[in-house]
Amino acid sequence: MPTTTRQIILKQRPEGWVTTDDFDTREIELGGPGDGDVLVRAIYMSLDPYMRGRMDASKSYAANFQIGEPLKARVIGEVTASNDDTFHPGDLVFGMLDWADHTMAGPAAGLRHVDPALAPLPYYLGVLGMPGMTAWIGMEMGDPKPGETVFVSAASVAVGQIAGQLGRLRGCRVVGSAGGDDKVAFLTNELGFDAAFNYKTAPDLLTALEEHAPVGVDMYFDNVGGATLEAALDHANNFARFIQCGMISQYNLERDQMQGIRNLTHINRKRIRMEGFIVGDHAERLDEFMGQMAGWLKSGAVTYRIHMTDGLENAPEAFISMLKGGNFGKQVVRIGDEP
Amino acid sequence: MPTTTRQIILKQRPEGWVTTDDFDTREIELGGPGDGDVLVRAIYMSLDPYMRGRMDASKSYAANFQIGEPLKARVIGEVTASNDDTFHPGDLVFGMLDWADHTMAGPAAGLRHVDPALAPLPYYLGVLGMPGMTAWIGMEMGDPKPGETVFVSAASVAVGQIAGQLGRLRGCRVVGSAGGDDKVAFLTNELGFDAAFNYKTAPDLLTALEEHAPVGVDMYFDNVGGATLEAALDHANNFARFIQCGMISQYNLERDQMQGIRNLTHINRKRIRMEGFIVGDHAERLDEFMGQMAGWLKSGAVTYRIHMTDGLENAPEAFISMLKGGNFGKQVVRIGDEP
Repeated sequence: MPTTTRQIILKQRPEGWVTTDDFDTREIELGGPGDGDVLVRAIYMSLDPYMRGRMDASKSYAANFQIGEPLKARVIGEVTASNDDTFHPGDLVFGMLDWADHTMAGPAAGLRHVDPALAPLPYYLGVLGMPGMTAWIGMEMGDPKPGETVFVSAASVAVGQIAGQLGRLRGCRVVGSAGGDDKVAFLTNELGFDAAFNYKTAPDLLTALEEHAPVGVDMYFDNVGGATLEAALDHANNFARFIQCGMISQYNLERDQMQGIRNLTHINRKRIRMEGFIVGDHAERLDEFMGQMAGWLKSGAVTYRIHMTDGLENAPEAFISMLKGGNFGKQVVRIGDEP
Repeated sequence: MPTTTRQIILKQRPEGWVTTDDFDTREIELGGPGDGDVLVRAIYMSLDPYMRGRMDASKSYAANFQIGEPLKARVIGEVTASNDDTFHPGDLVFGMLDWADHTMAGPAAGLRHVDPALAPLPYYLGVLGMPGMTAWIGMEMGDPKPGETVFVSAASVAVGQIAGQLGRLRGCRVVGSAGGDDKVAFLTNELGFDAAFNYKTAPDLLTALEEHAPVGVDMYFDNVGGATLEAALDHANNFARFIQCGMISQYNLERDQMQGIRNLTHINRKRIRMEGFIVGDHAERLDEFMGQMAGWLKSGAVTYRIHMTDGLENAPEAFISMLKGGNFGKQVVRIGDEP
């Protein structure tokens, strides 16, 4: 019996800020499953800032989305039909699937089983998934020592909330920035950050850093770039590590609109190491990460907040809101019910 | 018999570009030598871009010059009187001395002997001195592999000409930028650079890099910052190393005039490591450096060009000219005759 599904496709490449006009929805009948294919019913879908880069035609590290084709995302789902001996109807799986109710998943989807006994299913899209491992790898690279000050921007969302907690577990003083007083309170009250500030209402970012990180910044976990990066460079200590995870403040800007960083001379004077990374380069450490993080979740040493949006049809607006900092916690879309 | 000397002093802190009005000359009688002092007659004095930072009141990694006091520089000179058992009249020495004909050097001068048989005396201010070791440490940090492309800016002056030659000795393809066709010819004809271009006449820096470094940049040895840094980021390969030695294009600019670097998102996407350093942090490697570099000079594997200016009285103008790229080779001032 053929399966009918909704799919959200890329209608056009955004120029500047993404709008709902850049998306379209269609309903199609899926064929197959062909040899080796697995039909998956979506339950939870992850929305992540890196997807903005994949909407552009310009070269990025991930393959770009194609106009007229479904967008792709990390999805947790249930197998409903399978021509692959590894997967059976009823299995819960993770894979790179369509923004859709159902996906006919081939080998490129990279399906793997997930264990609902280990953690709530949405965690596999966050703390136990790509964002969690991104935070973990970034903290390995920055390697802050006990007593050092770690500053994390976008600290209440997917990656930042983990990066900050890992800094706390290392015995660092952890300072976060976020876009809302509720988020700031969450960082200090629930995640154990030593200090936090609201970048939207702070009169001046450097002054805010001077107040909340009085002895300077030894490691900056940068998720936003722009003005926050410039302030962090001004307030960095000698030999600081700047781990460049992302620059969400710049993703929707054309080159001539981007904020130029004018104080890179600090990199020389303060002997700063600024280093970018992509978690996919570190896939060989996945098991090590999963083992450590599962342990911290079980002991309660790490907690995680999800920002859940209901309904596939609301995914484009949730994505746009996330790019503007509207989410509070890791952005996930609930597409279908858990079994 | 007291010694009379000319001294060049800092009259006022420059705002923006340094001018000759920021300097003054005075003639004084030196006292002493006191206990442990050594009187040194200057022969060669080094002028280096880092000195611009020491003229500011703002915090820098080196102690600032003081208004009304002689500026300091690395000097090669001859001992003419001594109350230190280590040094005797006629000894040739290196030290951090005044911009002056004579300096009464205390322990802070860090005097040490130099061997005129090993290399021409001015080399101790360049290829065998701080600039040479700066190039050597920077190349150690970037650690380019045979076949990789190394790009060096300000490639015809103190540090750049050594950095490029060290890249050649590592089996890299070396590309340089410099401000003049004569300098460009020197790089390819005399220093063995594979390619070079004149940044002042290139229609566009990115286009110039695409032409001269056709397979991208794996390591950038940055002496200039600004527009050249932005072009190098655009043309960098994945996993490139950007070794930040200096940003001479920015030193004479106020913060709001500085060129903002707008394409730092490449650091993330291309997994670039950008790292600043100061050679003084690596003093423990001085002997290793001196041994290697002396060997290369002796074998002819490394050559070095000096830009010699005659007369202490011409030091301020030579310094200002150097900050504008007017020198061709390592800037040295001849203050007195060799013995």
